[in-house]
Amino acid sequence: MDGYNQSRYLTPASRITVVAHLFGITALILLLVWLLHYRTGFDLDSSHPERVFNLHPFLMFFGFIFFAGEAAMAYKTIRASREVQKFCHMLFHLIAIVLGIVGIYTAFKFHNMQHISHMHSLHSWIGMITFCFFGLQWLFGFALFMFPKARPFTREMAMPWHISGGRALLYMAICTAETGLMQIEPLTSKFSLINFIGLFILFFGITVDLSIALGHYV
Amino acid sequence: MDGYNQSRYLTPASRITVVAHLFGITALILLLVWLLHYRTGFDLDSSHPERVFNLHPFLMFFGFIFFAGEAAMAYKTIRASREVQKFCHMLFHLIAIVLGIVGIYTAFKFHNMQHISHMHSLHSWIGMITFCFFGLQWLFGFALFMFPKARPFTREMAMPWHISGGRALLYMAICTAETGLMQIEPLTSKFSLINFIGLFILFFGITVDLSIALGHYV
Repeated sequence: MDGYNQSRYLTPASRITVVAHLFGITALILLLVWLLHYRTGFDLDSSHPERVFNLHPFLMFFGFIFFAGEAAMAYKTIRASREVQKFCHMLFHLIAIVLGIVGIYTAFKFHNMQHISHMHSLHSWIGMITFCFFGLQWLFGFALFMFPKARPFTREMAMPWHISGGRALLYMAICTAETGLMQIEPLTSKFSLINFIGLFILFFGITVDLSIALGHYV
Repeated sequence: MDGYNQSRYLTPASRITVVAHLFGITALILLLVWLLHYRTGFDLDSSHPERVFNLHPFLMFFGFIFFAGEAAMAYKTIRASREVQKFCHMLFHLIAIVLGIVGIYTAFKFHNMQHISHMHSLHSWIGMITFCFFGLQWLFGFALFMFPKARPFTREMAMPWHISGGRALLYMAICTAETGLMQIEPLTSKFSLINFIGLFILFFGITVDLSIALGHYV
């Protein structure tokens, strides 16, 4: 399993990573069209609450979910030694966490500007639980598999929990995104852009999962 | 793997099925408290639209998601031969589909009573896609694994897709439930019953997934 393995890039599971990228990039483009064209664009320091808030969906999808998905697929997509893949897996998740923290901050800042109470909705509850467990998963993963690194037997025992837990967290993040989209006022247009954004985010999550799950078999 | 295997019931994965049941039953109790105590209860033939609508969340969670979860866990929870487990796996999914159809019908009937257009929300889009693929998954599963039943090699090739696809559908159903809860008017009470219902439905989905995923390893 170690080192460079050309044949790995021809499996059906690896082909699904291509589809996952198409879904992820489509969701990102639609999200940007929505936020920049139909809404008022981004500005963290704006006095206009909507411009602050718009950063929240952008950072939570592109910063958090997209990078976490890339991190999950790193063992399939990065043509390098297993050590490099592992480092990227850790690094992309770290980037996802940092951008996720900024994204959560923008939601809190928006609430403060609008004098709305925090942590009131189902979206906020699921999101905060997901994010806290995501952070814990990163810490456990780092300690077990990178530094100080557990003994081989312990790592082998922990691996199924790391993989299954990571997948559950990915789907929890997708659930949070979908509930978040439901919370935003519906577009007046009949052509429901938000619905398509939600669908492509969901398809991204499913194809990231399938590319990894099927990678264990086919 | 065939036949009665006592030791299987002591693995960590099997213990998670107990936790999954606790989460599922808690979600069901909270859902009934909400629908029967805080809302107006059920009646499919009522002239009061809310009493018709209330059947929708009940049937989609208890009828569809809960039975589908039970079906998914049948190989872990039912103490019988593999053939009996497999039959229950198929049957519980069929019950889920039938009750799901009635549940979807109640939403359409409510829309008609209220003169609301159908298939407008992200919830309805995700839900309909999930339900259609769920039906296809059942048909493919039945044809491949029960009748007329494919050759062993084909079944072995199809199994990872059946398992991974089934898990994706479970999480899609959970996503749909969460978006549906977001669509219903928030309770006036500060103690947000809907949020707890959403959390326990999510935890049910995660623990059903983990009990099966970890069952392959631990």
